[in-house]
Amino acid sequence: MSIADPARLTCPAPRSETGTVLLGHGSGGQLSAELLREVILPAFGPADAVPEDAALLAVDGAHLAVSTDAFVVNPLFFPGGDIGALAVHGTANDLAMMGAAPVALALAFVIEEGFPVADLQRICTSAAAAAAAAGTRIVTGDTKVVGRGAADGLFVTTTGVGRMLPGAAVSAAAARPGDVVLLSGPIAAHGTAIIGAREALGFESAIVSDTRALHRLVAAMLAAAGPALHTMRDPTRGGVASALNEIAVAARVGIEVDEATLPVPAAVAAACDLLGLDPLHVASEGCLAAIVAADQADELLATMRSTAEGQDAVAVGRVVAEHPGRVLLRTVVGGRRIVDLLVGEQLPRIC
Amino acid sequence: MSIADPARLTCPAPRSETGTVLLGHGSGGQLSAELLREVILPAFGPADAVPEDAALLAVDGAHLAVSTDAFVVNPLFFPGGDIGALAVHGTANDLAMMGAAPVALALAFVIEEGFPVADLQRICTSAAAAAAAAGTRIVTGDTKVVGRGAADGLFVTTTGVGRMLPGAAVSAAAARPGDVVLLSGPIAAHGTAIIGAREALGFESAIVSDTRALHRLVAAMLAAAGPALHTMRDPTRGGVASALNEIAVAARVGIEVDEATLPVPAAVAAACDLLGLDPLHVASEGCLAAIVAADQADELLATMRSTAEGQDAVAVGRVVAEHPGRVLLRTVVGGRRIVDLLVGEQLPRIC
Repeated sequence: MSIADPARLTCPAPRSETGTVLLGHGSGGQLSAELLREVILPAFGPADAVPEDAALLAVDGAHLAVSTDAFVVNPLFFPGGDIGALAVHGTANDLAMMGAAPVALALAFVIEEGFPVADLQRICTSAAAAAAAAGTRIVTGDTKVVGRGAADGLFVTTTGVGRMLPGAAVSAAAARPGDVVLLSGPIAAHGTAIIGAREALGFESAIVSDTRALHRLVAAMLAAAGPALHTMRDPTRGGVASALNEIAVAARVGIEVDEATLPVPAAVAAACDLLGLDPLHVASEGCLAAIVAADQADELLATMRSTAEGQDAVAVGRVVAEHPGRVLLRTVVGGRRIVDLLVGEQLPRIC
Repeated sequence: MSIADPARLTCPAPRSETGTVLLGHGSGGQLSAELLREVILPAFGPADAVPEDAALLAVDGAHLAVSTDAFVVNPLFFPGGDIGALAVHGTANDLAMMGAAPVALALAFVIEEGFPVADLQRICTSAAAAAAAAGTRIVTGDTKVVGRGAADGLFVTTTGVGRMLPGAAVSAAAARPGDVVLLSGPIAAHGTAIIGAREALGFESAIVSDTRALHRLVAAMLAAAGPALHTMRDPTRGGVASALNEIAVAARVGIEVDEATLPVPAAVAAACDLLGLDPLHVASEGCLAAIVAADQADELLATMRSTAEGQDAVAVGRVVAEHPGRVLLRTVVGGRRIVDLLVGEQLPRIC
């Protein structure tokens, strides 16, 4: 068995034999991809659409991006943030990954009867502050209430309308062999913070979600690299593994990552170890992966490091022509292993 | 006590003494208005905003409308439709009420683990068909899955981006004394169909939801009446009572409705009677209330009647300078009564 045919190395995902939706269908991993391919895209088409973080629209000469995300994070308040801020950052960042700045956000709540009004107030205030910090505003919304037991506390769906930034032409499909893979900062903090808070594992104080808006970082990156910046993706659900796999599949390229360069904070690494999690599969909410032409990589890295959000940016790998659609990790001991999409669901309701 | 001071006739709403969210906060009635005024608008501002069905945006010269709605209807499949079509129609119609045609829709699911994939497929197919029929497309989406018991089946949030139609300058605040109030068709079918299906009351076959897109009707109305068309509002949650009260408050005018002219189908009237519901408070999902300058009312009515969606359009009342912020009903026996916002929640989860 050769690494040149890595498809042979993977196990099939645990398909839903009963024809029901599984937790893993919301993981951002293999089952999510399957649901998208077999149910969602056949209905909404086109079936061969590249799954991007936002859709692009041209309306009367305006170049817009639109993105929507449902947030079901549990607990609603966690070290480093809450569902209100997370929902704003998540959607603003999905727009940013397409090279768009948020113009307006819409926010729809589904609330369980009996939910504390004071908590709703905190969440609204936090969302409004996050929107203001991201240079945008929540312009419309909706509130539905369901009976006790018909929802778990509060869910929120945030939709963003963004204006394309000058020079933005990024796409998951635009990665090219020879490109360099950058990460804007440490990974896996958000998911670890959530699971720590949920399970009261005692490391809550040490690990704080990295939830934040990345639009300033992205604007600086676009200004510095222009068309040499091929792809951006924020490694939320499914982590860096999902983000890079989606790029590898969309662009029909291989990606190689050097394990030694991966920025995993010590506390996060220890928590992942304790929980049996691979940090590559754990969500971040305040960093991004970027694919850039090699001759612009150093300059872009310097630009990223000059920003608050990108001060710890690093190069972690490269795009290759081999093993298209696959991500390989060069381990610290010199081996290579496939970095696959998450199978099933490790951490439900982390966003 | 004089009718000239109708505020003295109303009971206070059952406020949430325990500081928790009540079912009525999602009713579209008094508690919804209170939550908006006391929690939502103070956070997202401006606090004196006119609650419209959609927000208006100008981006690089393009005039856009944005609207979002969460749908939690129970059951998911009902006579005349399902949550997928309803979610598309509801959002497309909210755009239409501001004089905008839908350009793109975003759709986010929250799904309970164990939900049948076949039902998800039906819902997606229905939503896609409804979008196509409304001249638009679902361009982006999201799917989150929560554990068993953490949601009731499936919720969907639909967000629409619309392009303002030529000549559209409608607003809830634009109603003027002397204007005529029109309804595009029969009211209260949707809410009655849902409660009938939910409770298996046996009249399901007789009453079918009126859920449908109103963009063609609206385009015809704008073309016919132009700036004489002051206001449109679809009487969904909270029914005609909420729609007209919101207009009366926003425009600081009184509204008078003639009970004898109200188009309530006989089967719907009988069902409402049986259930102790006032049809004025029961949701429609396929008709609209319009406020038009008196000298254009006949022509607009003729135009509406020439369309499939407006063939049963009728004039039901007028805008007056008296009792600003209040809606009065002239009853068939010649009396007058206040048509207030719904107190509490009659029909939870009808949309």
